[in-house]
Amino acid sequence: MKRILLDCDPGIDDALAIALAHGSPEVEVTGITTVAGNVGLEHTTPNALALAEFYGMDVPVARGAARPLVRPGSAASDVHGNTGLGDVVLPAAKAEPVSEHAVDHIVNTIAASPGEISLVAVGPLTNIALALRKEPRITEWVREFVIMGGSYTRGNFSPAAEFNIAADPEAAGVVFEAPWRTVMFGLDLTHQARATAAVRQRFTGLGRLQDELLSPCLDFYGNNRQYREHGPAIHDACAVAYVIAPELFTLTEARVDVETSGRFSSGMTVTDFAPEAESNAAVAITLDQEGFWDLVTDAFERVSSAMG
Amino acid sequence: MKRILLDCDPGIDDALAIALAHGSPEVEVTGITTVAGNVGLEHTTPNALALAEFYGMDVPVARGAARPLVRPGSAASDVHGNTGLGDVVLPAAKAEPVSEHAVDHIVNTIAASPGEISLVAVGPLTNIALALRKEPRITEWVREFVIMGGSYTRGNFSPAAEFNIAADPEAAGVVFEAPWRTVMFGLDLTHQARATAAVRQRFTGLGRLQDELLSPCLDFYGNNRQYREHGPAIHDACAVAYVIAPELFTLTEARVDVETSGRFSSGMTVTDFAPEAESNAAVAITLDQEGFWDLVTDAFERVSSAMG
Amino acid sequence: MKRILLDCDPGIDDALAIALAHGSPEVEVTGITTVAGNVGLEHTTPNALALAEFYGMDVPVARGAARPLVRPGSAASDVHGNTGLGDVVLPAAKAEPVSEHAVDHIVNTIAASPGEISLVAVGPLTNIALALRKEPRITEWVREFVIMGGSYTRGNFSPAAEFNIAADPEAAGVVFEAPWRTVMFGLDLTHQARATAAVRQRFTGLGRLQDELLSPCLDFYGNNRQYREHGPAIHDACAVAYVIAPELFTLTEARVDVETSGRFSSGMTVTDFAPEAESNAAVAITLDQEGFWDLVTDAFERVSSAMG
Amino acid sequence: MKRILLDCDPGIDDALAIALAHGSPEVEVTGITTVAGNVGLEHTTPNALALAEFYGMDVPVARGAARPLVRPGSAASDVHGNTGLGDVVLPAAKAEPVSEHAVDHIVNTIAASPGEISLVAVGPLTNIALALRKEPRITEWVREFVIMGGSYTRGNFSPAAEFNIAADPEAAGVVFEAPWRTVMFGLDLTHQARATAAVRQRFTGLGRLQDELLSPCLDFYGNNRQYREHGPAIHDACAVAYVIAPELFTLTEARVDVETSGRFSSGMTVTDFAPEAESNAAVAITLDQEGFWDLVTDAFERVSSAMG
Repeated sequence: MKRILLDCDPGIDDALAIALAHGSPEVEVTGITTVAGNVGLEHTTPNALALAEFYGMDVPVARGAARPLVRPGSAASDVHGNTGLGDVVLPAAKAEPVSEHAVDHIVNTIAASPGEISLVAVGPLTNIALALRKEPRITEWVREFVIMGGSYTRGNFSPAAEFNIAADPEAAGVVFEAPWRTVMFGLDLTHQARATAAVRQRFTGLGRLQDELLSPCLDFYGNNRQYREHGPAIHDACAVAYVIAPELFTLTEARVDVETSGRFSSGMTVTDFAPEAESNAAVAITLDQEGFWDLVTDAFERVSSAMG
Repeated sequence: MKRILLDCDPGIDDALAIALAHGSPEVEVTGITTVAGNVGLEHTTPNALALAEFYGMDVPVARGAARPLVRPGSAASDVHGNTGLGDVVLPAAKAEPVSEHAVDHIVNTIAASPGEISLVAVGPLTNIALALRKEPRITEWVREFVIMGGSYTRGNFSPAAEFNIAADPEAAGVVFEAPWRTVMFGLDLTHQARATAAVRQRFTGLGRLQDELLSPCLDFYGNNRQYREHGPAIHDACAVAYVIAPELFTLTEARVDVETSGRFSSGMTVTDFAPEAESNAAVAITLDQEGFWDLVTDAFERVSSAMG
Repeated sequence: MKRILLDCDPGIDDALAIALAHGSPEVEVTGITTVAGNVGLEHTTPNALALAEFYGMDVPVARGAARPLVRPGSAASDVHGNTGLGDVVLPAAKAEPVSEHAVDHIVNTIAASPGEISLVAVGPLTNIALALRKEPRITEWVREFVIMGGSYTRGNFSPAAEFNIAADPEAAGVVFEAPWRTVMFGLDLTHQARATAAVRQRFTGLGRLQDELLSPCLDFYGNNRQYREHGPAIHDACAVAYVIAPELFTLTEARVDVETSGRFSSGMTVTDFAPEAESNAAVAITLDQEGFWDLVTDAFERVSSAMG
Repeated sequence: MKRILLDCDPGIDDALAIALAHGSPEVEVTGITTVAGNVGLEHTTPNALALAEFYGMDVPVARGAARPLVRPGSAASDVHGNTGLGDVVLPAAKAEPVSEHAVDHIVNTIAASPGEISLVAVGPLTNIALALRKEPRITEWVREFVIMGGSYTRGNFSPAAEFNIAADPEAAGVVFEAPWRTVMFGLDLTHQARATAAVRQRFTGLGRLQDELLSPCLDFYGNNRQYREHGPAIHDACAVAYVIAPELFTLTEARVDVETSGRFSSGMTVTDFAPEAESNAAVAITLDQEGFWDLVTDAFERVSSAMG
């Protein structure tokens, strides 16, 4: 069974990604680390704790970086609401974060189980970059490294850049330049994973999970301008789905460089598919949509059942 | 009848664009100005003169900038051959360039006929930027300003940038920031204008035009890696076709900013379609392919007939 | 006798530089070209014309670039006043600028007398850069090329950059990269040329030149914060003085690169004195202050005498 | 008694700075953290351990960052020799570094004694930046923060940048932007602290300290081109001396911004002394040279005596 260490900034699609991981018997969530991103760390950490308790997970949550590696922070409150879960207010968690900082939790978890941990990062890459600088050997010890972030055509933070990368371009640059193979789920892929009306129809009957979380969150999320026409893209769940069921995706090896100095294109993942480019990433290109939503729905049903 | 002043760097697709303009009764080519681009100015100027004589045109050719506005030059000899027309060597022209520099020719032509000149630039934008700095009022006096250049998704010079813009980003920045409406035919549009086998079939029977220019040029051009699968894109002809028959295209207003400081994305046309972005350009989105090739074929037939 | 073509943006110290050149029998001012800089072109051109008539000069004045090569313009009205000459309002000139653009005037003047013209630029380098792009051979035809601009320690526009370079860094980059030897009079030198009370004492008795121009201009100029302690630096006159009397200066060969992409250091002249650096400039280091003010005072006396 | 936590990259002048701190009864060295800089971390950490044992210090040494925050590393082996101490090879230390990473050692030491620790950083600022990102509150808990680095006129790594800042500009940017007052000892100050022949004369009679370390190190160091004329600058010792005897220095409040995006000026500390600039640093301007060398000589004598 694969073990996932999930670095995230919940965030609506993070919330769904956590549920997908928790509800999938093929994987175990070994820990959650938080980072500032969709909203500030003062929300993403309590959200992670609250979501874990809401889903019935027994998992350590470690608090991470409150701001990007180099530049000032930015948030996406217009997309995720002021506290990160739209209008949803979950009960505050009883648990506290572990005392270990997220960066140490990442390093220590991976160091303790070489070759076993799937590190999945679905927020800005600040914690990952800090971990790489503190212990470069995590690139050798990790089983696989998967991110949601970037794009090889157009962005959503700017015409050129996707939010997670644009929120901390220097960290993303550190991460892509590290000697591992980053598996990248960018917007070109995640825009194929939209919670359309037909998809959402499948979530009815999921009890409290549906009523108290999925339904209000997706209503809020889907109301954002960029999602109104085709439905909200459930970005972060794609990266988790890949760890569970890689056969749902096609990937292409590519060279990804992060633009950090552009005036108009800062945070862009400049993606070179030329055969002669020195590959440092596997970029997800196509999604088996039917298989993906089957996977998600099945996982949500298991979570819902266990919630009682 | 519209009057076209064509700034170009022939170049194979430039050669076809000139033929399209010359063979179209709806427009008159009032002058050709040359710039370094696909190949150096020592080739683009003789090529323009030779093409004009080959096609039987009586038109002034003015020599322009030998290198970009700020940075060192680059060429695309792999795509267009060492002298710019693949393996084709046309007879050297008897005519000389006019004594006027291209920048002055542009300024003076437009100033002499306010509201009448369609300025079409299908190479790097060095001459246009220099003209704007010398006489800013050309933005008021021009009838329309149309370019081939840029992209709103991916480039061909780099993953982020198209050749004409990447070859002189600072000039392109000057041009897009000038107070006129740049009509942009970027790669997203021009990749819809491919000289497929079916298209090239329509050129048979065009006599010397076909035998001595079209056929060898398109053989050379189409052999480039980027064009092998879907056929060579006849980029520059799209901008000329728009002046002749705008109804063949759909356009969208957008904000286009040129990246000049990026490490990996220099020369990118960062294109913002958001309604709140302050529009400075009309970006071509779709092409009526059948209508386009009808237009081109008809024009080529007229040129061929006149060549005897 | 040396012939000076002076590109300037009057400007108080420009006004003094023009008087110095006009009053020095060792040189002839063959023409004045104007550029936007200390104030806008709508002031620098009339100022150049008015100063020429005030001094009794018979010299062509050609209007040049109204804004920098690439980026938006900036001015130094706090230092030079709203119209460029402090509170001084000279009678409007009867003469008009020549019809030739400054860029053409520069190219044509130098081309007409190869090896004879000392090109002296004491404003932003926009006209010079445009001339280099239009006719690169001026680097071969010019006798010498001298500028006021830059610094090898600290700036006055910003901690890193001097005004003339910071006002158009891309143009300055073009100029320093051109294959000629730029003789640079930067702030490290020009701050040695201060119109102290003792210096100004020597200007008494210069009649209308003193009463109507020098005195009110230097009062205004010297009141600027940066000049209050040590007296105003007469920057531009240093470059002119070098053409007249190079023995007043020591120079060192150096590599000067212009920073165009810095966030905090844009417009800096990064000056490398290392022996292994590839020299492209001669940088003025020391000034014979007594000799300099003798030269200036003598010239001013001649101008004053001729004015009657 | 002040307690110094010293972050360094020994390095010849680091070695002298450690001796100065150890030999000064006014301060206690509470710990040494190492970073890659003058030479790689594989040398700076053993050097720190070996120097501590050579001097007879009982102090924890914690190993830190092996490479800069974002960009690839650079070293100054030409100045400090391949292993960092010129030709000197000290006996390998018996002690090991503590298990704690330097970043944690910094955070934990400062957190354990709020208001008591003088953090002195005399290498690239990578460890300090990482510590700030992990625990931003160290800015509140530290007693004072002092660095050797930067310049307000010219650099030594490049014409614009000093080595410690140029080696990790992004880290330096993080450090200067943090809400504390950085006390900066840049080249303008440290070039006043040169180990001239007269100074070195005072070190004779210091036994093994002189024979085995000072003498060969200063011979090697002083042989570097930049130091040949005026003697080697003992940069790092200035920052330590300030903690011991601040009265030896004059300082001026200033705004220091680190250039991270310049093509020619990356790593420059752009220093604005204007009264209206928002101060974030105190910049050392003048040194009482006699007092400084008295301080250093006295400390060295104490170290030498204790070494026996």
